[in-house]
Amino acid sequence: MASKNLLLLAGDGIGPEAMAEVKKLIAAMNVKLDSGFITDEGLVGGCAYDAHGAAISDADMAKAMAADAVLFGAVGGPKWDAVPYEVRPEAGLLRLRKDMELFANLRPAICYPALAASSSLKQEVVEGLDILIVRELTGGVYFGEPKQIIDLGNGQKRGIDTQVYDTFEIERISGVAFELARTRKNHVTSMEKRNVMKSGVLWNEVVTQTHKARYADVKLDHMLADAGGMQLVRWPKQFDVIVTDNLFGDMLSDIAAMLTGSIGMLPSASLGAPDARTKKRKALYEPVHGSAPDIAGKGIANPIAMIASFAMCMRYSFGMVAEADRLESAIAAVLDLGLRTRDILSPGMTEVGTAEMGDAIIARF
Amino acid sequence: MASKNLLLLAGDGIGPEAMAEVKKLIAAMNVKLDSGFITDEGLVGGCAYDAHGAAISDADMAKAMAADAVLFGAVGGPKWDAVPYEVRPEAGLLRLRKDMELFANLRPAICYPALAASSSLKQEVVEGLDILIVRELTGGVYFGEPKQIIDLGNGQKRGIDTQVYDTFEIERISGVAFELARTRKNHVTSMEKRNVMKSGVLWNEVVTQTHKARYADVKLDHMLADAGGMQLVRWPKQFDVIVTDNLFGDMLSDIAAMLTGSIGMLPSASLGAPDARTKKRKALYEPVHGSAPDIAGKGIANPIAMIASFAMCMRYSFGMVAEADRLESAIAAVLDLGLRTRDILSPGMTEVGTAEMGDAIIARF
Ligand SMILES: CC(C)[C@H](C(=O)O)[C@@H](O)C(=O)O
Ligand SMILES: CC(C)[C@H](C(=O)O)[C@@H](O)C(=O)O
Repeated sequence: MASKNLLLLAGDGIGPEAMAEVKKLIAAMNVKLDSGFITDEGLVGGCAYDAHGAAISDADMAKAMAADAVLFGAVGGPKWDAVPYEVRPEAGLLRLRKDMELFANLRPAICYPALAASSSLKQEVVEGLDILIVRELTGGVYFGEPKQIIDLGNGQKRGIDTQVYDTFEIERISGVAFELARTRKNHVTSMEKRNVMKSGVLWNEVVTQTHKARYADVKLDHMLADAGGMQLVRWPKQFDVIVTDNLFGDMLSDIAAMLTGSIGMLPSASLGAPDARTKKRKALYEPVHGSAPDIAGKGIANPIAMIASFAMCMRYSFGMVAEADRLESAIAAVLDLGLRTRDILSPGMTEVGTAEMGDAIIARF
Repeated sequence: MASKNLLLLAGDGIGPEAMAEVKKLIAAMNVKLDSGFITDEGLVGGCAYDAHGAAISDADMAKAMAADAVLFGAVGGPKWDAVPYEVRPEAGLLRLRKDMELFANLRPAICYPALAASSSLKQEVVEGLDILIVRELTGGVYFGEPKQIIDLGNGQKRGIDTQVYDTFEIERISGVAFELARTRKNHVTSMEKRNVMKSGVLWNEVVTQTHKARYADVKLDHMLADAGGMQLVRWPKQFDVIVTDNLFGDMLSDIAAMLTGSIGMLPSASLGAPDARTKKRKALYEPVHGSAPDIAGKGIANPIAMIASFAMCMRYSFGMVAEADRLESAIAAVLDLGLRTRDILSPGMTEVGTAEMGDAIIARF
């Protein structure tokens, strides 16, 4: 049996509470199904800074590199607002992405039927929504150099960030998008700002070439990223797979998530390239929501996004497609029963806490 | 009487049709109210490229610099998709912004009561919405150098753009936001990505200092730009004035515009610094919508955003507050009567064309 070594990095805020539900699920699977998951834990974010003075220690980073998959909770909170930029909580996540070379961030925006009414958008606009944002995750303005603040004297400073994309980076992320589109509605929309950015011109050119050379069977559209944001709000069902860069992906995937009315429900997967020998991809799975420090420690956080991230982990890292399907069905079943954490509560539904929600899903798995 | 020299740059697509309605209005005002507007015209965008091989000629640029205000229609279309980057239609608009130093872009997102039902968002989420996005317009990744595509050999290219902000640029745009907030609900939300971008760190720092030094009476919040995008979709009425950089402003103002269900209705103003001697600001007014080549020339475009841009022009460039108020009331009155261009048509309303809509507004002005 192939190894199933998981590193759990619960992080800050509601991260540990949400992760606790996944731990229960893993324990149950190991006992009842002999699933053979082996878990280890580490620190990331503010808690890692408090313990080691870094947003992730070299030792935990080494564990992440060695694991078959990393489950990540959330990082950050007001407690660490004033820590130096280099060791801020987010630096731990960014180091994981960069050092593990997790260039492909998959963010499904799915509207659970039971929650269609809770979106701020009209029900007919979001009902049945199922789009996938494929975001480039190791390049662009997140990592380009120079990235610095220069003191110009006279009370003036200059803040600089650099957006950089090379052909191969655009090629590989668009390859992922086209491959995934083939398993879906066979339609990719690429978004950039080629009318303003040279990296956008190159993005457009390389996506077009990759399409022509290897994926001509997939329908490809190009949209300016600002128009894309508008179209997401106007009529999101026009999209199937959206492929875009790191920063536009950050904005657009958050907006897409919010459309569904269920930001507490949405998982994501960050994948590396397949290893030449083992074919395994390095991978990290994390909820789209943040650390929500305002509700942390109260037992009311929604664990569904974290649990759904584990479903993605089974699907993409361990080929456990049947188990992933069953877990996703269990989530939908519990919602159909009317169980709701506070963030998705609506009249007539039954409010439950984090642990009750986790238990209910595990019971139906 | 102070001069009222207007340069009209109608541009491409539906720009000329929309501008024609403003021309009728100006002619009527000159005759009936002796308003004394003097208009000149020029070319910008694709039509300028066709005529001169540049997206705006030096001669028209000089006219823009000399005018008291520029009215701008829209630029671009598939006809010019393949022209070189340096002379693409957008380059004309970007040159106007840069050479006129129009650093402050004011984009109101207002939900007209008569149109609240036509938003893709729930009526209660957008009804009565009135927010103002103040976007920095002459800095950031739009203009930073290096901005280039480098050939690396081996079939690899590198696309580079540079995001740069200096203290004074952030100071002056946040000053505009705070001043405007004082005339509204006294609340500014500043948006950046300080968790990823050094320019965001500086942005946050300078806005905070400017607030403390000169505008401590205004309520100030900071939000990460991705969270800001989500909050715009979730509950936009939490905002009054949003101040943000050029690229985030591009994305966020388009999304805010789309929320209102009336992208064909929204104007914008782009202002420079007051001249040291005359106190006059260089200014350009333009609709938020684009050139919509698919409906150009059919007489069905919505001229309201262009007309409302002229209302902003009267308000900000000529101190004609009463006239601006009256023009905005005339627009609302015509909507209340049920007149609609095709883009905002809903059951039970009366469809009219571009010219009829313009005439109806002028008749009620
Ligand atoms: C926490 C932050 C660094 C991160 C990002 O900007 O990528 C987050 O917003 C996300 O989308 O995963
Ligand atoms: C046309 C384009 C260059 C422009 C921009 O990106 O600024 C437009 O989208 C806008 O928002 O005014």
